[in-house]
Amino acid sequence: MKSGGDFKAVDFRGGKVVLLDQTLLPREERYLEISDWRKVAEAIRTMRVRGAPAIGIAAAFAVALAAETGGRAEVSLACDELARTRPTAVNLFWAIARMRRVAGEASKGELAPALEAEAHRIAAEQDAADRAIGELGADLLPESCRALTHCNAGGLATYSFGTALGVIKAAHRRGKKIFVWVDETRPLLQGARLTAWELRREGVEMALICDDMAGHLMSRGEVDAVITGADRIAANGDTANKIGTYSLAVLAERHGIPFYVAAPLSTLDMELGDGGAIPIEERDPHEVTCVAGVRVSPDGVTARNFAFDVTPAELISAIITERGVARPPFGESLNLLSGEGGR
Amino acid sequence: MKSGGDFKAVDFRGGKVVLLDQTLLPREERYLEISDWRKVAEAIRTMRVRGAPAIGIAAAFAVALAAETGGRAEVSLACDELARTRPTAVNLFWAIARMRRVAGEASKGELAPALEAEAHRIAAEQDAADRAIGELGADLLPESCRALTHCNAGGLATYSFGTALGVIKAAHRRGKKIFVWVDETRPLLQGARLTAWELRREGVEMALICDDMAGHLMSRGEVDAVITGADRIAANGDTANKIGTYSLAVLAERHGIPFYVAAPLSTLDMELGDGGAIPIEERDPHEVTCVAGVRVSPDGVTARNFAFDVTPAELISAIITERGVARPPFGESLNLLSGEGGR
Repeated sequence: MKSGGDFKAVDFRGGKVVLLDQTLLPREERYLEISDWRKVAEAIRTMRVRGAPAIGIAAAFAVALAAETGGRAEVSLACDELARTRPTAVNLFWAIARMRRVAGEASKGELAPALEAEAHRIAAEQDAADRAIGELGADLLPESCRALTHCNAGGLATYSFGTALGVIKAAHRRGKKIFVWVDETRPLLQGARLTAWELRREGVEMALICDDMAGHLMSRGEVDAVITGADRIAANGDTANKIGTYSLAVLAERHGIPFYVAAPLSTLDMELGDGGAIPIEERDPHEVTCVAGVRVSPDGVTARNFAFDVTPAELISAIITERGVARPPFGESLNLLSGEGGR
Repeated sequence: MKSGGDFKAVDFRGGKVVLLDQTLLPREERYLEISDWRKVAEAIRTMRVRGAPAIGIAAAFAVALAAETGGRAEVSLACDELARTRPTAVNLFWAIARMRRVAGEASKGELAPALEAEAHRIAAEQDAADRAIGELGADLLPESCRALTHCNAGGLATYSFGTALGVIKAAHRRGKKIFVWVDETRPLLQGARLTAWELRREGVEMALICDDMAGHLMSRGEVDAVITGADRIAANGDTANKIGTYSLAVLAERHGIPFYVAAPLSTLDMELGDGGAIPIEERDPHEVTCVAGVRVSPDGVTARNFAFDVTPAELISAIITERGVARPPFGESLNLLSGEGGR
């Protein structure tokens, strides 16, 4: 087994939330040490920390911080405010709900240590989930595989190991011959900046492409599998993920290429029957009209900036969770997996 | 009929080739006046002038320039060199072939004026073709239409009016309610920079999007038609165009959205049975790793940079040419249109 390039995207140490600032990568690896929960909320909003599981963990640590610096009222305020930072990823709301539950049950003297322990538990569970997803997913990839991924579903997006990239890392560490096509992922270029950084650190072979090149590569038979993360999965398997994921799934289906979603069960929203009701965040148009800080379109031109899209279950070959690989029909398989041991 | 925002992307005046430098748009509208045909070849290579018909016209003017500054040997040298600038667009080779034919037939004293006249004829024919394509295409669009386009198939890409954007302009000038989704078109952002500039000048309503957002918009029912240009069309209708076009065609088919190609007959390559043999240019990876001049991916990360892809005829609803609208089966309809009056 090869050695890895592990890191922690988010942590809680010495009474501070520690975040690797993802807006500065890959130019600079700077860790922010934050002692005000409001600044963690701001870091989530501005995507210094991003990725569905990672923002859940960051929010949990922020709530622990609120308990240390304020009291029960501050915890409640922090939970409300953190829930308003980003709308699409369900892990955020799930993590906040866990923190609220623990806060409700803890005595006054126990509040801060109980919340800190719960936040660390969420992080540890995510790490264990990532590594289980990695092993289960690695089984699905052939010995020699050219995988295509979109955005960053790596350790940067979860905690340390990653979901979609966790699968790739696990296969690579087992000695499988893995090559990755990295979609740059406009507008914020998480593929070009973050996935490329993470795969390079891991020593995985890759080539960066623009998002509009994936179809061409598939038509030339140069893609063996597509693998992405998820921000929210409905009970029927419909999956919200970074904008552009849906197009890849449509193209993969046309070319008979398996399309895998790798995500922890905390991404599952069993209360939503299908993907139609998943709220899709629309962000500042400046992220589109400006590229890498440079205004590219003429002044006065408007833009739209959808951050996510929904891939219907019918286009997904398998959803790789920490408890097993769900196959269609997902209504049944996800229900079974989410039921085992509960959430 | 509304007034237009016409301009000339390429011209020959006062013994100089005049090019609107498209690498500087939209920040700056600078016209280059070039008196050395080699510098025109360089301008084609570096995409100061781009678009299949426009590089054909620029090459024709460059050959006329070679005749003025040199003689018959220089013309032959210029034709050889200009043919090596870019591989995919057939209009380039077609225009050079026309110039060679005229050079071969002209007496020594007539060489320069004959070549200048032929180059102007190519430009005038393109202009007439664009306007005919515009009118025929405008008939196809509904009274109220949200069209999606990729790259720039406007006057900047042809000569003055444009093919795909010519259709949009003609429909707009007739008073149809046209809204355009403008794909930014990575890596060189011809949509964000050039199509946005051209539509703004024309007063057409639009919104810029990243290339990975088109599928989401289609799934929400917000796209009524997709319309693009072409760089080379094989006898069976398979169409090479800017990278990303193929993905749009696959998505349009899934959503039952008409997919139109607008191109002059000079883009047709009847010698190619299908698109498999169309050479696909691969450009410098720096265009992918750097965005708007800023390096975004980590040092040492490699990239691939395919400039075009091929959309199979089966995904194309109609090819709009200056002599009529070709419908499937394109083998027959294109043969009929290209035969009328010859090329």
